[in-house]
This record gives sequence, structure tokens and C-alpha cells, in this order.
Amino acid sequence: MNGKMKAVQITEPGKFQVASIDIPKPQHGEVLAEIKSVAICGSDPNILNGKVLKNGWPPYYPFVAGHEFAACVIELGEAVTTLKVGDRVAGEAHCGCGTCEMCMQGYYNLCLNYGNSTAGHHHYGHNTSGCYAQYQVYDQKALTLLPDNVSYDEGALVDTAGTAYNALKLTGVEPGGYTAVIGPGPMGLMSMALAKTMSSKTIVIGRRERLQVAKKLGADYIIDFEKVDDPVEEVRKLTDGLGAHQVIECAGNATAYFEAVQMTRKHGHVALISIPGGDGQEMALKSMIMNQITLHGVRANPNCSKSVLDLISQGGLDIKSLITHIYSIDKIHDAFDTFINRKDGAVKVIIHPND
Amino acid sequence: MNGKMKAVQITEPGKFQVASIDIPKPQHGEVLAEIKSVAICGSDPNILNGKVLKNGWPPYYPFVAGHEFAACVIELGEAVTTLKVGDRVAGEAHCGCGTCEMCMQGYYNLCLNYGNSTAGHHHYGHNTSGCYAQYQVYDQKALTLLPDNVSYDEGALVDTAGTAYNALKLTGVEPGGYTAVIGPGPMGLMSMALAKTMSSKTIVIGRRERLQVAKKLGADYIIDFEKVDDPVEEVRKLTDGLGAHQVIECAGNATAYFEAVQMTRKHGHVALISIPGGDGQEMALKSMIMNQITLHGVRANPNCSKSVLDLISQGGLDIKSLITHIYSIDKIHDAFDTFINRKDGAVKVIIHPND
Amino acid sequence: MNGKMKAVQITEPGKFQVASIDIPKPQHGEVLAEIKSVAICGSDPNILNGKVLKNGWPPYYPFVAGHEFAACVIELGEAVTTLKVGDRVAGEAHCGCGTCEMCMQGYYNLCLNYGNSTAGHHHYGHNTSGCYAQYQVYDQKALTLLPDNVSYDEGALVDTAGTAYNALKLTGVEPGGYTAVIGPGPMGLMSMALAKTMSSKTIVIGRRERLQVAKKLGADYIIDFEKVDDPVEEVRKLTDGLGAHQVIECAGNATAYFEAVQMTRKHGHVALISIPGGDGQEMALKSMIMNQITLHGVRANPNCSKSVLDLISQGGLDIKSLITHIYSIDKIHDAFDTFINRKDGAVKVIIHPND
Amino acid sequence: MNGKMKAVQITEPGKFQVASIDIPKPQHGEVLAEIKSVAICGSDPNILNGKVLKNGWPPYYPFVAGHEFAACVIELGEAVTTLKVGDRVAGEAHCGCGTCEMCMQGYYNLCLNYGNSTAGHHHYGHNTSGCYAQYQVYDQKALTLLPDNVSYDEGALVDTAGTAYNALKLTGVEPGGYTAVIGPGPMGLMSMALAKTMSSKTIVIGRRERLQVAKKLGADYIIDFEKVDDPVEEVRKLTDGLGAHQVIECAGNATAYFEAVQMTRKHGHVALISIPGGDGQEMALKSMIMNQITLHGVRANPNCSKSVLDLISQGGLDIKSLITHIYSIDKIHDAFDTFINRKDGAVKVIIHPND
Repeated sequence: MNGKMKAVQITEPGKFQVASIDIPKPQHGEVLAEIKSVAICGSDPNILNGKVLKNGWPPYYPFVAGHEFAACVIELGEAVTTLKVGDRVAGEAHCGCGTCEMCMQGYYNLCLNYGNSTAGHHHYGHNTSGCYAQYQVYDQKALTLLPDNVSYDEGALVDTAGTAYNALKLTGVEPGGYTAVIGPGPMGLMSMALAKTMSSKTIVIGRRERLQVAKKLGADYIIDFEKVDDPVEEVRKLTDGLGAHQVIECAGNATAYFEAVQMTRKHGHVALISIPGGDGQEMALKSMIMNQITLHGVRANPNCSKSVLDLISQGGLDIKSLITHIYSIDKIHDAFDTFINRKDGAVKVIIHPND
Repeated sequence: MNGKMKAVQITEPGKFQVASIDIPKPQHGEVLAEIKSVAICGSDPNILNGKVLKNGWPPYYPFVAGHEFAACVIELGEAVTTLKVGDRVAGEAHCGCGTCEMCMQGYYNLCLNYGNSTAGHHHYGHNTSGCYAQYQVYDQKALTLLPDNVSYDEGALVDTAGTAYNALKLTGVEPGGYTAVIGPGPMGLMSMALAKTMSSKTIVIGRRERLQVAKKLGADYIIDFEKVDDPVEEVRKLTDGLGAHQVIECAGNATAYFEAVQMTRKHGHVALISIPGGDGQEMALKSMIMNQITLHGVRANPNCSKSVLDLISQGGLDIKSLITHIYSIDKIHDAFDTFINRKDGAVKVIIHPND
Repeated sequence: MNGKMKAVQITEPGKFQVASIDIPKPQHGEVLAEIKSVAICGSDPNILNGKVLKNGWPPYYPFVAGHEFAACVIELGEAVTTLKVGDRVAGEAHCGCGTCEMCMQGYYNLCLNYGNSTAGHHHYGHNTSGCYAQYQVYDQKALTLLPDNVSYDEGALVDTAGTAYNALKLTGVEPGGYTAVIGPGPMGLMSMALAKTMSSKTIVIGRRERLQVAKKLGADYIIDFEKVDDPVEEVRKLTDGLGAHQVIECAGNATAYFEAVQMTRKHGHVALISIPGGDGQEMALKSMIMNQITLHGVRANPNCSKSVLDLISQGGLDIKSLITHIYSIDKIHDAFDTFINRKDGAVKVIIHPND
Repeated sequence: MNGKMKAVQITEPGKFQVASIDIPKPQHGEVLAEIKSVAICGSDPNILNGKVLKNGWPPYYPFVAGHEFAACVIELGEAVTTLKVGDRVAGEAHCGCGTCEMCMQGYYNLCLNYGNSTAGHHHYGHNTSGCYAQYQVYDQKALTLLPDNVSYDEGALVDTAGTAYNALKLTGVEPGGYTAVIGPGPMGLMSMALAKTMSSKTIVIGRRERLQVAKKLGADYIIDFEKVDDPVEEVRKLTDGLGAHQVIECAGNATAYFEAVQMTRKHGHVALISIPGGDGQEMALKSMIMNQITLHGVRANPNCSKSVLDLISQGGLDIKSLITHIYSIDKIHDAFDTFINRKDGAVKVIIHPND
């Protein structure tokens, strides 16, 4: 398909606007997709504002960001075998080269060719153009079919939900046990909702409105860390004095990292999802060793999309309750303003580039 | 057996001496053992000097410490079914209650009745009398039969070797891959030797004489951190730029904890064995998350003694090369002086209480 | 407590009756329990009828069988630390010696001292007296506290539910995936119900009334093998042509064993619960190898009771719907007649020895 | 490269000869490789003789078989990023599509597009042309770099060794434990040698010359099943009456399948490598369930080549001792005759297509 399309271009740190640019062409193994729904990720404001330039995000200006999306396939490049025109799909940010040692083992989120697009690696919306646009090209490996009864808006949340799912796969979930989640943002709320699908009791630690959202979405217990002396102690009280079996860290601050370990029981597991700014963070190492706790770094969502979509399709995971706002692409500044400042109880804010 | 025996009593922090005390009597499930060989553990000086009183070690004075030993069974208490008089055995420090949730699952090192001797828990030489004595009583669960061709002195090293073995079980070892060990003390040297039994290439990071010991005992590569700019970079150079598959931390200082993660490859594993003084330690958390690395807290050596003894018996693990000095119990002060000050290249220092 | 109690004694193969015998006395680590509820297990008729004598079940006559129960602790033997008088408990059939290699690792269902009661092993109702009685003595390790909101009748089903739970722990359950269960008896129905608590879609293969019970209890799909050409093909149709992720075999006949593997997808897992009469059974070995399928032998329910009880307590597992009949101990022959001949849609038949 | 090359063509079941055919051209992601060394696999005679036509091997005539090889890259197709001209490589038979669910998870041996070469799947020498030729084209994903000190002949054995390695990865290996291997053919011998690299004691069950080869290559114990009453009993005698921790089945006959389970200890693991002719095989199912044994179907060698090559390079695995004969391509009939009839103690027979 030839022609022009609307896309949100970042032109310098902190500046972005809707522009008219060429519709890209799919290469070997790629499809052209009409973007139906985009969800703003917590990392997007940092990419827009130049705060993660040291990671190579974005690698150049002008740049089109965005990586949480659902779309419709409208054109096939060469050698596309898993998709056809008309397919409704959910996307992932990470696309591995497919040939390195990590990709061959299924860890394409850890591709050894990270950043090397010639070798086939793409981190969409980070080092390769993303989905704040009417159309975009994607490697077939980054797309998963949407079940008929799953909407595009739900599909746009699968990248986030998949990361939460990966965290729970890594920690394991004991049915009948306790999962504590620190930080009731979108990632934390999805972690909580997913833990419940595996019959874990859930405890969410946070504050203010979002903690109430957690309660509304089904958290068994909530702990407002502004209202208690010691959240660790509160978790212990709820868990026979032993701590949670699994703790999912989604807050990304020093206290959260530290207390995540402290509220874990002996032989328990902690997943760390939030990426800190600097490498060095204080951890409760003595607690970790004395109690033989395992810590899992969580990078994105390899091979998680299908399971998450099946759960949504089967009615086991209510993901659409997280969507609070929907905007057209022309209202992109309003959308980001709403998301960043959590206006009107904003949780997940969606863009419809083609409305 | 009635009568008196020699034992090393700690009478107050920093003070200990050989005294004559009553030979203890075995209770239900216990045996009386004649202690043949004791190895000084790196934690023993801390117990002697009162540095770990906050952990309850020792719980009272006078106290008999010591927890790395091999012995001969000379008397049986009631209901002892796995041992008989004359059995040669190696000991473990941790004996779980046998009935709590953790013990029932095999994690007796994490017994929920820690410190409750009425419930059957013992941490020998820590909160229950230990082996710096001619005789001691032990629960049968804490003793493992020595194969005929394994000496008492080798048996006395099994508690340490078992902890290294537990670390490697937790990280997993990829044959043909790389295991980096930080800190070539006895624990690090055993970790290295055990990694070699699983066909991993080994890299030991340390300095001075002990690093040379590592080389002599078979380390494939050594890195003297005093002589290189950046040990992390050196490990990467040896591993195709990717880092080690497994890293075993046995140095217990801030730099070691931090660099352990940084020298681990994507999808790799780190075992933390050394227990820090305080809970808070700075860790390379961003590296850990971005590379989806797993950290394992290692607490002692549950169900490891038999495997370690089999390896020694089969000739696969040369453990006796770590023994540099042997003393009688009357020379206990000399023994500790040699061990603490690493005199004459001391690595493992052994006491023979009955010589 | 001294005195007499009612107990169901098997006096020879095929003969059993209620007799008055001495109330037993708890030994070291044991409690005396007042039996509140007993569930008839599918294996009980075989024990009564002498069909499993070669397994040593029962080891002598007269013998008291029965191993699925809930009870109230009324007297403590020596050294009981985890229970007190008045505690409401659910029981397990297997009690390991606690000191052998398997027990120490948490596999007390595989105790190396099987059958050696001197060493502390008991297989209640099999080689040690069981619960078809008003009172019985049990090792504290075989009892788990009932949450307040779980009834004795529910507690009596925990031994069966725990075995189903062990099967699912061994296979793993992929949320969003498919679990096929062959044989909708009590074990199969519990396997199905538990798979649902982990958000798996469930397919139950069976026939007649019990298949309808499966439907009523929430099975997503049922396949009546008498009404279709090929159950394997039917499973494939429901699973995108790929087969189920997990298959739980609970039927115990030659066709079931064979087809269990054939209806499993590539890289899938099969759990075999039903114990066949003879050792040799035909398996679909080529299918298993070509598709790299894993088969798990399932022996009982080590360390499963607490998780199952927590699930029931949290409302996640409706176990009481399986109970169709309740009898007093005096009606033991009616109870077995109802159970064996599946009268009035009998699924789980309960005895109340003290009513 | 244009021109003709020598290749062994199967023209009908049982008939094959050296012919001159066009050198193939590498497509997207493929390289042209000069074949340096080919090893005859036990399955090759079946492919030549039409015994596995029902599996689609070969899919047409004339066909070039062969799938165990090492080669030199001499030309690159488009988009080859992991290899360059001059690279020395070892090959694998299985090349997955790279985009299906199984491939994305790293199980490319279980590719859902098996047999669909348009989608990118190839099973070289089975449904796609193989290496009994001077040149062949290969997807880069099927090739692994040879370390400098590993010869082409050693590289040709990596496909077999990788399958044995996969088996041991699936069973796990306990250092200090026992690994029993049934069938001392090339696969069994490599399984034994690999188990030794992980410090397991090895027991090989077989007969005649090849059993002596096992002994010579380092088996700790050998059992000649023609000379003992009961091989299962013999294994138990060597393992404290408990059976082996891991059993690797490489014989492919009914007795071997059955006894593999019977000689496994409680909680042990069995790997089944040999593919039987028909699906139905009698297994010791009661033993498997009563002892909670796990059975692993083993299909080929996903992600094993690099580990095996590293082991060879590091001197940990002596693979070249298995090579007994080397032939030029013109002597292909002699080579097969030697291999099939085990002439002169033939174990691994090698072809050099370019000598």
C-alpha cells in the first residue's frame, strides 16, 4: 500500500506531534498492519521526554514510539506463513532475531542481537518505529491472533498483561497460597488479576485511588502503606506470620524493592518487573539468604501472549476494566496528559489511530 | 555412656577454653557420637567473638560451638532406625523439627520451628551444643553414613561442601558452560571443584595466595581483582563477551555482591552464599531485570551430604587437598589463630578432639 | 483414653462387620483422634475383598481399613508439637518414617521404609489400622489442621483431592490451556475441578451418569466415548488439532492408558493415577517419543493437603458437591453396597462413625 | 556456485548410488556448505530401505539422505547473519519454521509446521535433501560453529551426541548418582560418556563386543543380559537395592522398554530415545505409578549442539573414539555394509564426500 498516514513523531526530547509520513512497506517475514488500538505504557512518557536516551530509546529523531497495540493485517511481505490479510492481531514490543542462542531457546526477549535490525531484531517503539501511527510494519513473530471474542482494545493490553504473566510463570503460583503485589498501577493490577486466575489469594500494597481500584478489581486484601506503620508486618499478619509465597514488585522505588524480599516467606519467590533508573539498588540480602528466597528479574513477555489471550477469551481475565479513557490520534497530547497526571482516575489510556 | 569429656567452652564473647564437662545422653531419635574430626568454619570465629549474638548464636554461656564434623556412633537413644553402633558418619549443622511445612517438603534448612529445640529443631554449634568436644549427641537425621573409603577428615568437610553443592543445584550447571566463583576461601574452592565435577569451565575471582590455591586445585581461569581494572570485564572477555552462566558469590563484601550480577549472562543464575552483616546491600538490579537473571539465596545444605560423599567416594571430588592443618583439641587456640590469620597458607584447619 | 469402640473389622477376604475393640493408645509423636467423617475410597472394596493381598493390604486379619477421614484430636502422645486437644484435622493415608532419603527430601509417599512400622512408616488403612472406627491413633505428620469454615465431611475428601492435586502439580497446568481428564469418578472429577481453579479449560472423557456429573460440576467439554468414533479425535477437534496440554488418567483401563498419550499435544504432560492390576500395560510409546511427551506416575499426595484445604476454605474448590450419601457406621454394608454399585448416582459415600 | 556434484541418490526402496546432480542454491537465510564429514545414523538404513515411508522418509525419489554432518560454509544466501564464508560448522537434522508456537518456545524439534518446507521447516535427510553429497544448502539455524580444536569428524557426531545430551537434560543427572544405559550402540555409548561428564556412575546393559566397547570407553559397570538371570536385579545390586536414578533407553526392543522402568528407583527418571516401529509397547506401568517415576519421550536434540561442542573442545567428552571407519563417497556401499553388519567392530562409520 502506498500513500501517507498520520503518525505521532517525537522530534526532540519532550516534543511530539501528529505528522503525515509515508506508509512503510513490509519486508521479508513482515506484514503491514492497520493499527486499531494503542495503549499508553508507563515507559512511553520517558521515551517521549528523553529520559531513557542512554538505553537508545529513541535511537534517532524524528521517531515514532508506541508498543502496546492491536491491529488488522492488510498486506503481507514475502515469506509470511502464519498470518493472512484480514487477521486481527495483538502485538508485542520485542521481536528477536530468531537465530541467536537466546532466540533459539525461546528467550527472544533476551536476543543477543538486541538493537541490530539488520540481524532481524526489533524492539518496537523503542529502537524501531512503533504504533502511534495509522499503520506500521511488523515481523510476523511479534503478532498473535486475537480470538474472535477479544476486542482490539483488549488486545492492546496484552503486551502489559503478558509481562505480568511472565512474572508469575517465573515465580510459580501456589494455588491456595498468597501473592503480594506492590504497586497498583496497570502492571500491578494485571499481576493481581492473573494471580487470581491461578487461585492465589492476593494482597495489594499501594495508596490512594489506585489501591481502591485494586479492591474493586478483586484484590482479597489491600494495604495502604501511608496508613500503616509497616507494610511488611501487615503482610505477615495476613499470612500466618510467614509472608507471601510470591511477591511481584511493580512500584519501582527503593522501599518497594527492599520490602519485596522482606515480605516473602521462606523458600518464596520475588519477581522484579519495574526497571530502576540506576543499576545499584539496596536489597534485603541477608533476609534473602537466610530464608533461601529466589529473585527473578523479569524482562518483558516471551511466549505469553497466547496464554493471556486465551484467558481473556475464556472469560477468566477481565482486562477491559482497566481501560478508563479512549482518544483519537489527534488528541494525543490530551491522552498523555490524562495518563501522566492520572486525571479522572486514569489507569489505561487508549488511542485509536484510525478513528 | 557416663563420664566426663573435654570440650571447648565459650564462656563470654571472645573467651573460650578446654573444659571437662559431662558426656551428654542421647534422647529419642538421637545417638551419642565420638567426634573424630572437626573443621573450623568461617562462621566459628564470629560465634566465638560474639559478633552474631543478635542471631542467637550462642544462645547462652558457657556454650560449645562447632558444626563441621565426622564421628563414630557409640550409643543409640530410643527409636534410632537408620544408624547402629560403630557407624562412621558425617554431620550437618541443621536438623529440622521434621513436622513443620518446610521440613515435610524437604527444606529442613528452613524449619519453621527454628530455635525451638522442644519441637525437635537444632542448629548444632549455633543454638544447640556442637562438636568442639570429644562426644556429642545428634539427631539421626543430621548424620549421613561415610562410605568406607572416605576418611573422617574428609567427612568433616561435607557440611561446607554440601552448601556449595546446594548453591550449584539451585543455579543449575550447564555442562560446557562457565561458572564464576567470587572468593576463593574454602566455600569458593569447593564450589569451583564441584562445578568442575559437572563439566563446567571455572573462573575464580580473588587475590593473593588463595587465588593460587584455586589455580592449583584446577580452576580453569583465575582473575586477581587487585591486578585488573575491572573483574566484570575480564569475565566477559573469557566468555565470548556474554558473562558466566552461573556465578557463585562466596566473598561477602559489597563489591562482590554487586559484581556477581554484572558478570552473569542473560538468563543466567547467581547464588549468594555469604551472609552479610546487615540486611541492606546494594545490588545491580537494573542489570538483573534487563537480563532476566535469577538470584538464589543459599541457606546451608539440605539433602546434599549423600551426593557429596558419593562424589568423594567415587574419586570425583578431591576435598582433602583443602586440609592444610590438623590440631588436637588442646591446641584449639593455635588452631583458631592459624585459621583466622591464614598462617602458613591455611585453608581448612581440622581439630581431632580424641587424639 | 481407655475403653472400647466400634470398628469395622475385615475378618477374611470379603467378610467384614462392626465389632467392639480396644481404643488404641497414641505413641511417641502420635495423637488419638475421634473419627468424625470417613469417605469410601475406590481402593477400599479391593482391600475388603482380598484383591490386593499381594501388596500386603491388609497384612493380617482381623484388620481395620479406611484412609480418607477427618477427625478431632482428643489425646496427645509424647512429643506432639504441631497439634493440641480439640484440633480439627484432615488425614492422609501415607505417613513416612521421616528419616530415610525420600522422606528427608519431602517424598514421604515414596518412603524407603515402606511397611516398616518400627521405623515409623504407616500406610493407614492399608498396612496399619485405619479409620473405619470411632477412634484411631495417627502420627502428627499425617494430619493437617482444618480451616474453621471447612467441614469434617469436606476434610474426609482431602486425601483424594490431594492426589489429584499432586497429579496437576507434576504435569503443571498452563492457564488458558486444555486439561483432559479420562474417567469421571471421584478422582477424575476432583482433577477436573482443580484444573479449573488454575484456569485451564477442561475436557472430561467418560460415559453415562458420571459424565453428566462432570458437566454439572463445571467441565467445559464432555466426550462420551460410547457415542463417538474416536475420543482422541474429539479431543483434537476441541484443541485446534493439537491435543490437550495435560491429560490426567483416572479410568484405569487399557484403552485409557493408551489414549491418554495419544490425546496429548507435543511437549505435553500425562499424569497416570489409576494403579493397574498387573505391571505390563500397552502404551503409545511412539507417539510419546515423537512428540516428546512426559509421563508422570502419581503416587498419592505428598504435601498437598494444606493447599487443597486452603482452596476449599477460600471458596475456590467446591468439593462437597461430590458427596451423595452419608451413613452411620452401623450401616457400613449399605454404604459399601451404595458405593460399589453406584446406587442413586453415588459418587462419594461418607461414614460417620460417631453418629 | 554453479556446477555438478556427487551425491548418493536413493532411487527406490533399497536402491541407492552415487550420481552427478546440480549443486543447490542457498535461499533466504540459507548457506551453501561443502560437506566434510558425514556419519551414518542408525536410522539411515531404514530410510534407504523404505522401512519408514509411512513417516514420509523419503518423501520422493530420487532422494538424497543423510543428516549427521560437519561442513564448511562456502556461499551465503540472503539475510544470513550468524555465519560467514569459511566458517566450520556442525549440523543438526531438525530445522524448525521459526515462527510456530513450538519454535518460538525453543522446541524446534517439535515444529508445528513439520513437513511444510514453504513455512521454513526442514528435517534434513528425512523430508528435505541431506548430506550424502559434496554440497548441500542449510538454514543457518541448523548449523553451529565448530571450535577450532574440534575436527570435522567429531562435528559429524554432534547430532547423535546432542540427542543423548537432550535425554540427560530431560532426566536431570544427579552427580554421585547412578545412570543406567540400555543398549551400547552409538547413542547409548554417548549417553554413558555424557553421564560421566556430569559425575554420574554409569551402568551399561547390553551384550557381546559393544558391551566391551562401553567398558573401554569408561562405563563403571557393564551387565551382559545374556549372562545374567535378570538385568533388573543386577542393577539393583549395584545401587543399594534401589535402582538407578536415571535410565536411558537406547536399545529399542520390548524388553528394554519394559525393564527401563523396572530398574529405576523411586522418584527416578527414564528417557526413551529409540523410536519403536509401532505405537503400542508394553510398559511397566504399575511400577511407574507406585514409585512415582517420570518418563520422558526424547525427540532429537534442540539447542544441544553448542553444549556438546563445548564439552568436546574442553576435553571433557572423548567422542572420536567412537569412530571406527572412514570411507570416501564412492565407497558408500562398503560403508553401509560395514555399518549395518557391524563389521570389524564398527561403531560410527564416517563418509568423506570430498576426499
